[in-house]
Amino acid sequence: MKDEIIYMDNAASSRLDDEVFEAMKPYMLDNYAVATSDFAYSMGVEAKEALDDAREMIVNELNGTPEEFIFTSGATESSNLALKGVAEELSEEGNHIIISEIEDFPVLNTAKALEKEGFDVTYLEVDEEGFVDLNELEESIEEDTILVSIQHGNQEIGTVQDIAKIAEVCDDHDVIYHTDATHTFGRVPIDVSEVPVDLVTVAAHPIHGPRGIGGLYIREGTSIKKQMNGGFQENNLRAGVENIPGAVGFAKAVELIDEEENKRIENLRNELMEGLMEEIPETILNGPKEKRTPQNANITFHYVEGESITLHLDMRGIAVSTGSACFSKSLEASHVIMGIGGDHERAHGSVRFTLGRFNDQEEIDEVVKATSEVIEELREISPLSKEEEE
Amino acid sequence: MKDEIIYMDNAASSRLDDEVFEAMKPYMLDNYAVATSDFAYSMGVEAKEALDDAREMIVNELNGTPEEFIFTSGATESSNLALKGVAEELSEEGNHIIISEIEDFPVLNTAKALEKEGFDVTYLEVDEEGFVDLNELEESIEEDTILVSIQHGNQEIGTVQDIAKIAEVCDDHDVIYHTDATHTFGRVPIDVSEVPVDLVTVAAHPIHGPRGIGGLYIREGTSIKKQMNGGFQENNLRAGVENIPGAVGFAKAVELIDEEENKRIENLRNELMEGLMEEIPETILNGPKEKRTPQNANITFHYVEGESITLHLDMRGIAVSTGSACFSKSLEASHVIMGIGGDHERAHGSVRFTLGRFNDQEEIDEVVKATSEVIEELREISPLSKEEEE
Repeated sequence: MKDEIIYMDNAASSRLDDEVFEAMKPYMLDNYAVATSDFAYSMGVEAKEALDDAREMIVNELNGTPEEFIFTSGATESSNLALKGVAEELSEEGNHIIISEIEDFPVLNTAKALEKEGFDVTYLEVDEEGFVDLNELEESIEEDTILVSIQHGNQEIGTVQDIAKIAEVCDDHDVIYHTDATHTFGRVPIDVSEVPVDLVTVAAHPIHGPRGIGGLYIREGTSIKKQMNGGFQENNLRAGVENIPGAVGFAKAVELIDEEENKRIENLRNELMEGLMEEIPETILNGPKEKRTPQNANITFHYVEGESITLHLDMRGIAVSTGSACFSKSLEASHVIMGIGGDHERAHGSVRFTLGRFNDQEEIDEVVKATSEVIEELREISPLSKEEEE
Repeated sequence: MKDEIIYMDNAASSRLDDEVFEAMKPYMLDNYAVATSDFAYSMGVEAKEALDDAREMIVNELNGTPEEFIFTSGATESSNLALKGVAEELSEEGNHIIISEIEDFPVLNTAKALEKEGFDVTYLEVDEEGFVDLNELEESIEEDTILVSIQHGNQEIGTVQDIAKIAEVCDDHDVIYHTDATHTFGRVPIDVSEVPVDLVTVAAHPIHGPRGIGGLYIREGTSIKKQMNGGFQENNLRAGVENIPGAVGFAKAVELIDEEENKRIENLRNELMEGLMEEIPETILNGPKEKRTPQNANITFHYVEGESITLHLDMRGIAVSTGSACFSKSLEASHVIMGIGGDHERAHGSVRFTLGRFNDQEEIDEVVKATSEVIEELREISPLSKEEEE
């Protein structure tokens, strides 16, 4: 194995930035007071200020107000709160929920859990690039629809939905709209003062912030029921002693992101995508060419298994993923690739590359070269490839 | 204000240990792979091993097996999962839940939330030291009782319940028993191979571990429904990308605790408790003298408000609490002090001192002296005190 690993899986965009680490450090070692003691002593007040400053920095990225943002333990919790919180609060007004069929597991499996409890869920189909159809969305809204949850950027194929238009449709029909922005927050702008989205899931680790911290934007006046009971923290919407180092790290991660970096990552990603498609025959680009999260590339290499590709690249010190990170445990075909019209072969042969702040030109060149070689080797011994030739 | 603050509030036991910080560091900066990619690449496998090792270290402290322990975002989530998870899974078998009236907010308010959903909750009374009565517990168990949740150590007055006997009563009646061990884990032994407790809530931050990480011991075969939907992590009982730095820090925190330290803290606490009671007239010890968490002292000083005492001690660079940390936001009288038969005056005049690894003899002496002086000053100007004299 190489000395230095090239990360082009999820970890590429989740390597903690040194500056984030430095920002968190004093709140781990020096000021560890409990923020909620705001009637009490000065260190608690200081801790509370750090929490409030972090909240403001993060919600500014969405152009919302601090009263509209709460911290959670991550994107999974945020999306659970959004879906269950609205469903339970509005269950007397209606029991119909709409999501897209390619949502990430927190939204998809929460919707399925609500379905078991008696809610009616529509799983909107997507086109071959992963986009929902606005007319289909509008047609599927019924009298008793209480919530639409359609993601901003897809976790596997990077498709960036037109959430402004989706939000308008929801707004027109007076339905609450939640979007999972885990893979776009900081990378693709969202302006809640322009776009009438009601709930936005965000997380720190996809933008070089810490694990175990995320948040939920909740537009003022949105009907939502607290899911984590206990103390009165987070505007009485999420109990638990505040993770101040996490919040401060999250805020620093947001502060460090800028348009220039996103452009740079997008350019590298384009080179990677084009390089792989040009060098390697018989490939399919999964997801759209444009309207795609800047950090994501996803390609199916015919006649080879994604698992074999990842293992062989791993031996060369390169980390990539096949399917979503949570996904590989189930060994089932990716519901996203199947959703865009792929078959099992296309799903199993798909490889996802994720870029982050620390990837560079040299790594792109090396990954294109190594992947080409690995695919060639694997195809030589692949029974699938041989069958085709016969 | 003094240069160095003396922490004797919750933060005293939650100051991150330097060794914990050092243990977490490599998992923040060097290996940041996603642990769930265990079919994929070697860094992911390494991350997974770190997670498994952490799990084993923590569950060993309870004498359980790694399969019986899952990580959560903290004690609040653990107790929410325990109560809601069992209640929802067993709702067809019964709808009666028993808790003590002095539970901490995660258990108390989750029980109240379940009550609103139609569950029947019995709030067991406690005696003047905070102990539940085993006969009362047994008598309150009915045909349709599915869950008992009685804490191990109290968050405000330190009362350590006899969970071995409580567990036996529950076991005899085939009722699931959950205990919130947030304030005893690592400090007061629990052996799940001896005590038939089914669910145990634990957290890292009260033993100098990081914020934002906790866990739930779940005895094999316990009926419980997943609350956080999404990926298949944590034995498919808690979705979300694993917080590996948090888990590793939690494990290191457990490793660093030993009996000797607990004895040392208990001795210091006894000196503090006795010093305050001897130096200051008209005080009440809240909670028992023995069978008390080693780190906790809680005293009511008559004729003065706890808020005034904390503020005045703060000006002298000493951090203490009044009521529980989450509590001070509500400004209501402590339900714990009220539960042990106190009135509003006793509750509002109560001050909680919490000790940790970094407190020493000198600090104890200084806190006794400063508190004596503050109480004397405050009593001189207290209308309550004057009324009494008239």
